Amino acid sequence: MLALYHFGPIANSLTPLLCMIEKSLTFDDRFLSSRRWEHHAPAFLAINPEGKVPVLVHDGQIVAESTVINEYLEEVFPQVPLRPADAWGRAQVRIWTKFVDEYLCPALTVIGAHNASSFASAIDKGEMRTILERIPDREIQKKWAIVSSGGFTPEQLTDARERLARAVAQMEAQLAQNGDWFVGDDYSLADIKIFSMAPGVERVAPDLCNETVSPHVHGWLRRVEARPAVKAMFARVYQR
Amino acid sequence: MLALYHFGPIANSLTPLLCMIEKSLTFDDRFLSSRRWEHHAPAFLAINPEGKVPVLVHDGQIVAESTVINEYLEEVFPQVPLRPADAWGRAQVRIWTKFVDEYLCPALTVIGAHNASSFASAIDKGEMRTILERIPDREIQKKWAIVSSGGFTPEQLTDARERLARAVAQMEAQLAQNGDWFVGDDYSLADIKIFSMAPGVERVAPDLCNETVSPHVHGWLRRVEARPAVKAMFARVYQR
Repeated sequence: MLALYHFGPIANSLTPLLCMIEKSLTFDDRFLSSRRWEHHAPAFLAINPEGKVPVLVHDGQIVAESTVINEYLEEVFPQVPLRPADAWGRAQVRIWTKFVDEYLCPALTVIGAHNASSFASAIDKGEMRTILERIPDREIQKKWAIVSSGGFTPEQLTDARERLARAVAQMEAQLAQNGDWFVGDDYSLADIKIFSMAPGVERVAPDLCNETVSPHVHGWLRRVEARPAVKAMFARVYQR
Repeated sequence: MLALYHFGPIANSLTPLLCMIEKSLTFDDRFLSSRRWEHHAPAFLAINPEGKVPVLVHDGQIVAESTVINEYLEEVFPQVPLRPADAWGRAQVRIWTKFVDEYLCPALTVIGAHNASSFASAIDKGEMRTILERIPDREIQKKWAIVSSGGFTPEQLTDARERLARAVAQMEAQLAQNGDWFVGDDYSLADIKIFSMAPGVERVAPDLCNETVSPHVHGWLRRVEARPAVKAMFARVYQR
């Protein structure tokens, strides 16, 4: 039995969702609505006490963390390979997924969360307190406390935008040098991981990531979007 | 040909150094003195333009990032296995190495770097400017700019200490539940990665990590220290 709990084709949830569709795996597609805070409700906390998605359930065992889930899927379902065959190539894939987890995603999260502050500020204060109290992860709780009380400081936003600009420059340089995909000759888990975040950069910071500033990233995004698995993923209907 | 460039048996440099000794690999042991900023000198920048250690060189190819290096070593030199044989167990090892890279290490770095501010503040201002200008990585450059001009704010230090306390609590809970080692029945890359940072926590925040507060972590640290490979690593002599 294979099941994926996720928020739909966006951010960290996109990572294993796209990987599973690329691999043509059959799985229980368990969508949770982040706007209705379903990931902090008792039904989901019974599955993952940390209240985080995505989570994979495979034969009764839980695998958390999107990057780890994809490496697990690659080991257990290698029929459609999404990593280079050689160890050095696989190391490069890991370098790029780490880059997303440790650099691109944290910077993007600051701006994305800040943009959610009008949504969060509109929630009744008492209700927001209850929502915050139910968040098991202390760092995520702190982030939403900031977001629901006006958002990040100008300094924090400037710093995040600077990091995003550097992240885009690194991606641009890699594609300019490597060609169609981020690692080696083929589409890989590196492209999937970066695709979980790069459209968000285009959306929240269009001046930092566009056809003029980062033409190779722009072209790569369109190549990923043209893939049948990506189209199939976006065609799935979820009730937000 | 196998070579490791590193700062000695501490922090991220310890990770691949200990792994290679555990695996009884023969390698060129290339120590760099961080106090003499040898990692930002032209000789090393010719090997890794990012100016970061550790770096593995294997048959002319470079592998960066300590966590990635150890996964690479595990794939290329599996004779002494340092990961569980099953995919789920390997996923748990990755969860714990991610925990160190994304949570424990960033918190520890704030306090460790702050404690280096007396060392950095004592450097002549003009010389420090030259040192800063030579740092290729912008985030590391920013960190040293903060450190050399007084260090982090009380709020940043409190936040880092809170995160360290939570990290210790997570490690303590895992060992209380799992036994001698962090994942499965055997010592693994998870223990090695955590051992790269946990002695630093004991050192810079002894009130947060000790025999009373975290007895399982305390016992585990002594178990790791008793390993022949760990003793052999600390017996190596480097000229700081």
